[in-house]
Amino acid sequence: MTPAPEEALPLLKERLATVADLDAASGVLSWDRQTYMPGGGVAGRAEQLATLNRLSHEMLTSGETARLLDAAGEPEPETDAEALVRLARREHDRAVKLPSSLVAEISRSTTLAEPAWQRARADSDYAVLAPHLEKILDLQREAAEHLGYEDHPYEALLDRYEPGARKARLEVMFDELKQGTAGMIRTVANHAGEDREAPLHGTFDERKQEEFGKVVASAFGYDWDRGRQDRAAHPFCINFGGSGDVRITTRFDPGWLSPALFATLHETGHALYEQGIDPTYSRTPISGGASLGVHESQSRLWENIVGRSRSFWTHFYPRLRKIFPDALGSTDLEAFHRAVNAARPSEIRVEADELTYNLHVALRFELEVALVEGSLSVADLPEAWNAKMEEHLGLTPKGDARGVLQDVHWAMGVFGYFPTYTIGTVLSVQLFDAALEAHPEIPGEMERGEFGTLLGWLRENVHRHGKKYEPDDLVERATGRPPEAGPYLRYLGDKFGELYGMP
Amino acid sequence: MTPAPEEALPLLKERLATVADLDAASGVLSWDRQTYMPGGGVAGRAEQLATLNRLSHEMLTSGETARLLDAAGEPEPETDAEALVRLARREHDRAVKLPSSLVAEISRSTTLAEPAWQRARADSDYAVLAPHLEKILDLQREAAEHLGYEDHPYEALLDRYEPGARKARLEVMFDELKQGTAGMIRTVANHAGEDREAPLHGTFDERKQEEFGKVVASAFGYDWDRGRQDRAAHPFCINFGGSGDVRITTRFDPGWLSPALFATLHETGHALYEQGIDPTYSRTPISGGASLGVHESQSRLWENIVGRSRSFWTHFYPRLRKIFPDALGSTDLEAFHRAVNAARPSEIRVEADELTYNLHVALRFELEVALVEGSLSVADLPEAWNAKMEEHLGLTPKGDARGVLQDVHWAMGVFGYFPTYTIGTVLSVQLFDAALEAHPEIPGEMERGEFGTLLGWLRENVHRHGKKYEPDDLVERATGRPPEAGPYLRYLGDKFGELYGMP
Repeated sequence: MTPAPEEALPLLKERLATVADLDAASGVLSWDRQTYMPGGGVAGRAEQLATLNRLSHEMLTSGETARLLDAAGEPEPETDAEALVRLARREHDRAVKLPSSLVAEISRSTTLAEPAWQRARADSDYAVLAPHLEKILDLQREAAEHLGYEDHPYEALLDRYEPGARKARLEVMFDELKQGTAGMIRTVANHAGEDREAPLHGTFDERKQEEFGKVVASAFGYDWDRGRQDRAAHPFCINFGGSGDVRITTRFDPGWLSPALFATLHETGHALYEQGIDPTYSRTPISGGASLGVHESQSRLWENIVGRSRSFWTHFYPRLRKIFPDALGSTDLEAFHRAVNAARPSEIRVEADELTYNLHVALRFELEVALVEGSLSVADLPEAWNAKMEEHLGLTPKGDARGVLQDVHWAMGVFGYFPTYTIGTVLSVQLFDAALEAHPEIPGEMERGEFGTLLGWLRENVHRHGKKYEPDDLVERATGRPPEAGPYLRYLGDKFGELYGMP
Repeated sequence: MTPAPEEALPLLKERLATVADLDAASGVLSWDRQTYMPGGGVAGRAEQLATLNRLSHEMLTSGETARLLDAAGEPEPETDAEALVRLARREHDRAVKLPSSLVAEISRSTTLAEPAWQRARADSDYAVLAPHLEKILDLQREAAEHLGYEDHPYEALLDRYEPGARKARLEVMFDELKQGTAGMIRTVANHAGEDREAPLHGTFDERKQEEFGKVVASAFGYDWDRGRQDRAAHPFCINFGGSGDVRITTRFDPGWLSPALFATLHETGHALYEQGIDPTYSRTPISGGASLGVHESQSRLWENIVGRSRSFWTHFYPRLRKIFPDALGSTDLEAFHRAVNAARPSEIRVEADELTYNLHVALRFELEVALVEGSLSVADLPEAWNAKMEEHLGLTPKGDARGVLQDVHWAMGVFGYFPTYTIGTVLSVQLFDAALEAHPEIPGEMERGEFGTLLGWLRENVHRHGKKYEPDDLVERATGRPPEAGPYLRYLGDKFGELYGMP
């Protein structure tokens, strides 16, 4: 007997809450694996994560879930119930396409691959990772066939992170960005002789770096009673099923200020989004960011638009200088602002400037497409990586640790994710511009170390909604326009025009 | 169709492995809750743990598990298969008696009660904990009725931790201990004027305490690649489904050396047991200690028999003194040995000496029995606690924080657990004596800071077997005798006779 919609909905919510709890538990196990787990725990943890993922998948794909989804019908548009059913249906439909055994195998193989990636990167030895990557890529290609696609298997993987995104539209976007920045990058390259970044290198005590990062995160509005910061090989933000426990991680370099500082601002941006989601969405599919692109817009906004602005540093630079008087004593605000915005082609994506960053992403996008369609083999990947680096950025990495091994993503089975970084980067300016139009006082507040108006606008227009609206819809509601790259190119032009004396 | 035993057994093992993975995941979530989780995570974590416990319970009690248990038949005695089926059947039978909803409610209520206990203890305000305790006790009494018992509902709860233990036998054991120690305690009380413990109070930097504890744990044989130590409000040892990740926690008092030091040795003892279990038992019901009493025998053995012996301190005291030259400069080995063995009636169980410790346990045992049978109400518990303290130890705690609120157990829904502390204390000497009989060189090795022979004997005779043998059987195999209190009373007589000049 099919239950009535008003009976089906609470039952459906209960099942989805169980799925959410299992996924949150996986999150805790994964956080622990990347922060505190001793080496001896690897094998057991792989089994535990595989089991949790299998059970979550079985629960989501079960006949009972399908029956309740059918019975729930089509709730009133624009209601939370409508969003819940729509999102649950999408997750269910996607999940039924993947066999449980494949899901478990993906989980197990990636759990084993991650420590292999850490060893491979530490020794700059691609051969340690390669067999894992072979296996992981095979499983991803198998997943793409199960998930289905119209034009290209890559889109089946991409759609998991950015619903509705298309390979062709991304190619257009990357072309627009390449063309729009080519002139600026040429100008910047003419300044290659200047060592603008010098002030960021020196002796920076890790504990003091950590303290300063926490001061900034607190000023942005990060709530430490609903989060914490730990150390991990790769910085990340993770939430455990709601807005009540949203954690960030970072890593420190005692000789270089930028990596930990900007990673902290970046992950704080992600965390502010998660902490701002309506808590009534906890344990439902509406919890979490609208898409990874929208998520990345928040991390980029706080890291770059705020964290590399003159307004921000007008307030914070005197404080930073007081913490590191030896290293920064002879650097004034203008020199420091130039340093954190120094642009030049470089090897490492997470350390790249705003001007060249999207070329790093374009490279990964092109390689991923080739790996997934099979026109590039795992064995040939390091060579292909180095060739693309030469083509896009005019340089060859000094060893695979600073090349193909620099990111954890592929070892985690994450293909189709990288483009969301550029989607987010582009959206960050579009959203910030809209906030600025509504509240022209924002830059003045930033100069006083205040961010409440900016955060308030983001909370109201982006954060609180969680996944309720589709990404394009959310952006249009917030900014009055569909997603577009124009504002980002204008922002780059204004900023780097001034910094590098371009017309 | 009923499968043949040789087909049923692998299927049964697979299901039990899923149960073990869910329980291991609960373990990680519980460890995190007690070490690093921010306050905002409490509500979500309660839901997650309730869901994991419910799923584990459902899997263990399902018709499919019952069918496979029936089909598995009676494997060859003394084989791992026999132990697996026997233990799985016991867990299944016990679990089918508890409704899933009750299991989930117990999990949820205890997850909420624990932070309440922390607040209650911090403010010495029993009223903060009382409503939680009411709820938890009701659920435990309900559980006892479901589990069933012969003579007394308390035995239904006790049996979960110490299979086969009986209330009447415990009463006899506590009486034997009370009578056997009464004279010694009177003699010791005559020394009340001496401040033997003075050397343990002073200024002891927390980080240095932590380092010294780690040095000792390493010397005992704790494997840091399969474990770690963190801080928690209540010290504990936890393993995540096998011998590959066994963690300990402790807490530090910068003005008092004993609590962290002996808690570390104690939890290390538990951890050595878990790390020593045959790794092929991971993800099976044979993993883990034979009983909580046997587990406690290992913690007590390393904490007390080793960690308070003259042999141990002959090696380690000069090292400790070098670390804390200011605090310990004027204390020689004999004075320090007297200090760590100072005996006197006191308020806090975890800080009690070997002579009076079992009276603390007897008090809890008597109160638990009364609470469970309903002859004592939660409202009257603080008064009853204080009355028992007066009766057994001749003192009244200075506030509930140092009285009824000192232990987390009841807030965790753990009733029937305390007696295992005394069972373990008694067994620790019986097992140590057997090791000594086989290897008379052990005290000499301890004087050189070497523990390999002792650990080797425990590994061979106790640790590696996990739960394979029933507790009494294991003790008899290891020592040639059934469990008995005699050796423990002789040990106390020898030790305190010498320390306090008794005949």
